[in-house]
Amino acid sequence: MTSSEEELPLQVPPVPGFRFSGIAGGIKASGGPDLALIAADGAVTAAGVFTRNLLCAAPVVLSRTRVALGRARAVLVNSGNANAATGEAGFTAALRTSAWLAEALGCPVDEVLVASTGVIGVPLPEAPFEAHVGALVDALDEDGGAGFARAILTTDRWPKVAQAQLELRGLSAPVVGIAKGAGMIHPDMATTLAFVVTSAAVSPEQLQRALTRATDETFNRITVDGDTSTNDTILCLASGAPGAARVESEGDEAALETAIRTVLAELSESIVADGEGAEHRVRIVVEGAPSDAGAVDVARTVATSLLVKTALHGCDPNWGRLLAAAGRAGVPFDPAAATVRIGHVVVYDRGQVLDPSDEPRVVAVMRAPSYRIEFDLGAGKGRAHYDTCDLGHAYVTVNADYRT
Amino acid sequence: MTSSEEELPLQVPPVPGFRFSGIAGGIKASGGPDLALIAADGAVTAAGVFTRNLLCAAPVVLSRTRVALGRARAVLVNSGNANAATGEAGFTAALRTSAWLAEALGCPVDEVLVASTGVIGVPLPEAPFEAHVGALVDALDEDGGAGFARAILTTDRWPKVAQAQLELRGLSAPVVGIAKGAGMIHPDMATTLAFVVTSAAVSPEQLQRALTRATDETFNRITVDGDTSTNDTILCLASGAPGAARVESEGDEAALETAIRTVLAELSESIVADGEGAEHRVRIVVEGAPSDAGAVDVARTVATSLLVKTALHGCDPNWGRLLAAAGRAGVPFDPAAATVRIGHVVVYDRGQVLDPSDEPRVVAVMRAPSYRIEFDLGAGKGRAHYDTCDLGHAYVTVNADYRT
Repeated sequence: MTSSEEELPLQVPPVPGFRFSGIAGGIKASGGPDLALIAADGAVTAAGVFTRNLLCAAPVVLSRTRVALGRARAVLVNSGNANAATGEAGFTAALRTSAWLAEALGCPVDEVLVASTGVIGVPLPEAPFEAHVGALVDALDEDGGAGFARAILTTDRWPKVAQAQLELRGLSAPVVGIAKGAGMIHPDMATTLAFVVTSAAVSPEQLQRALTRATDETFNRITVDGDTSTNDTILCLASGAPGAARVESEGDEAALETAIRTVLAELSESIVADGEGAEHRVRIVVEGAPSDAGAVDVARTVATSLLVKTALHGCDPNWGRLLAAAGRAGVPFDPAAATVRIGHVVVYDRGQVLDPSDEPRVVAVMRAPSYRIEFDLGAGKGRAHYDTCDLGHAYVTVNADYRT
Repeated sequence: MTSSEEELPLQVPPVPGFRFSGIAGGIKASGGPDLALIAADGAVTAAGVFTRNLLCAAPVVLSRTRVALGRARAVLVNSGNANAATGEAGFTAALRTSAWLAEALGCPVDEVLVASTGVIGVPLPEAPFEAHVGALVDALDEDGGAGFARAILTTDRWPKVAQAQLELRGLSAPVVGIAKGAGMIHPDMATTLAFVVTSAAVSPEQLQRALTRATDETFNRITVDGDTSTNDTILCLASGAPGAARVESEGDEAALETAIRTVLAELSESIVADGEGAEHRVRIVVEGAPSDAGAVDVARTVATSLLVKTALHGCDPNWGRLLAAAGRAGVPFDPAAATVRIGHVVVYDRGQVLDPSDEPRVVAVMRAPSYRIEFDLGAGKGRAHYDTCDLGHAYVTVNADYRT
């Protein structure tokens, strides 16, 4: 369940073995909550997936190194400052803030993972951490997930929470995910963070494999503007709480992967829907490609095309732009054998184009907040999808106009 | 000399062996000139470079086949309709219109090349060609280049003409190029066409090699919005007029390539400057890459980044966006060894970032209509550039809002 209705009270179910908190530490000028913590009762299994941008933030460098150990005790998150492109001082700040938390929790410092989101290129203020880390630990509560979810937001329009249940041989384990959007809603805040916790018992290797695979088909298949952040981080912790499902066989691992994928899929859809100034969330589905990898290339090229995204904004059933974008993806197919559907309406069928009298039906589909565009390339069995959103004036306003 | 000043009378120097014309045939609803012709006095050497989009227009398919023969007599161009995504009827129209011209000129039909630009997905009206092809031939004039240059435009803000001189062993030959922009100035008009004529004597193989290489460093290094057209075409004809320079040795070929590159570089710069709603033309220069190909990848990734292009529009010296775009190009370099310069101002120097007090100097640079952004990646000797423009509200307006 994605919490995309702001009006509803935010529900984050407890996960045995974990407590959460979120408080205002004074990093955000607004005074809103900006320090967030997930703490396990002891060291637990950990896995992570990080941005592939060469310019990665200090917390990414630190957490990537530490999560490689396969275990963690806590995740310390701040919003309001990304601690990216901050040079050596940024690494020092990440190290020092994590050390303060380790001291407060009484755990080894390499069991503390960190993540930051907010403006880049500005030194991370350390004083708020030093002053408030005790209060952050004191506020930990097994029902504190909602406070955590709110404290990691920057300019998201709503918090993002999703859950699934892992069931193995009569034992169950909740899988709960909390994320913030890559909304580009404010300049320099191109940051996606997601945290998944489960009470399942699982080895670090299994957890890392399941997380990597689940990410590949979810967070790696969404685009708001094609730019990759310096801070993108997904961390997953598994407590192995007493009585919880235990992941042993390959089949168990597949079930865990499915549960994580369900959670990440809902979070990523919520992130796209919250894309900057976006009015439509559109799933680009590609079938009939020469391979699955080819289908991904075509879907991504269509999903990131500026001409497509502006046409989506204008509710313009411009199959020419859709086909032209597919045609430059570097994947061989014959346009004379391809079909394109917007919602349920065929707009291009192996050379036959949309009858103008059918256009109002397509425009009606495109006015919806969410719909699908489906390609059948007629060139094989490859299949993939990519989620995108429209691009309108609001995008330009927040990304260009703020200085003028 | 690029004709980017609309006020000046358009000068297109004559090229021995060629005549030009441009007339209004009734394809454009505006009634403006929309039929254009270049005719040689007899069959001449021909070469071409075409869009790599799988969805290519009927005239591209036809001209690509015919230019492979290495000779041509004429190029028939229409604006107002791209004859793209028009199915079999589109090929029939391209064949038929070229046959009418061949008859009027008294030449074999396979010596007629065609190019179209304008709206896609709408059948090309054939009647204007049948009715006016005689008048188009009658209007041919060695001083008709300006009329040709105007008749191939769609919504360009100015015609695009450039010239260079080839000098070989005391003999010379003018090289004249005429283009229309990929301005995306009107929806569905993502089409670049360019035509280069010279009086030099050259073999088809030499001409094709010189054109391909010159294109790679000019028209293949510009971006307005990253979308590749269905119609992009560059055709080059060489008449071998009496007394003109003769290309024989490899050194001669290199000189021809340089002349063509000079012409295409000026045309491509004019096209970027005419980018839709663009206020700034920016050259992204990348040095210190592991290879030239890597430098191209970094330059292209920066030049097509939406976050970069919106920052250029806002005159925002956002070195974080510049470095983040470079960092996701898939080319290895160490941000701690890189520097970034906007105009003459260093905005990022191996981890040291722009001092806020220097910001007004950078903003002043970015207010100019044209400037450079230079990366030194500190990772090798690879070097390349890419020309781009800013992206503002005008882009969204013309590409999304026209239906709303």
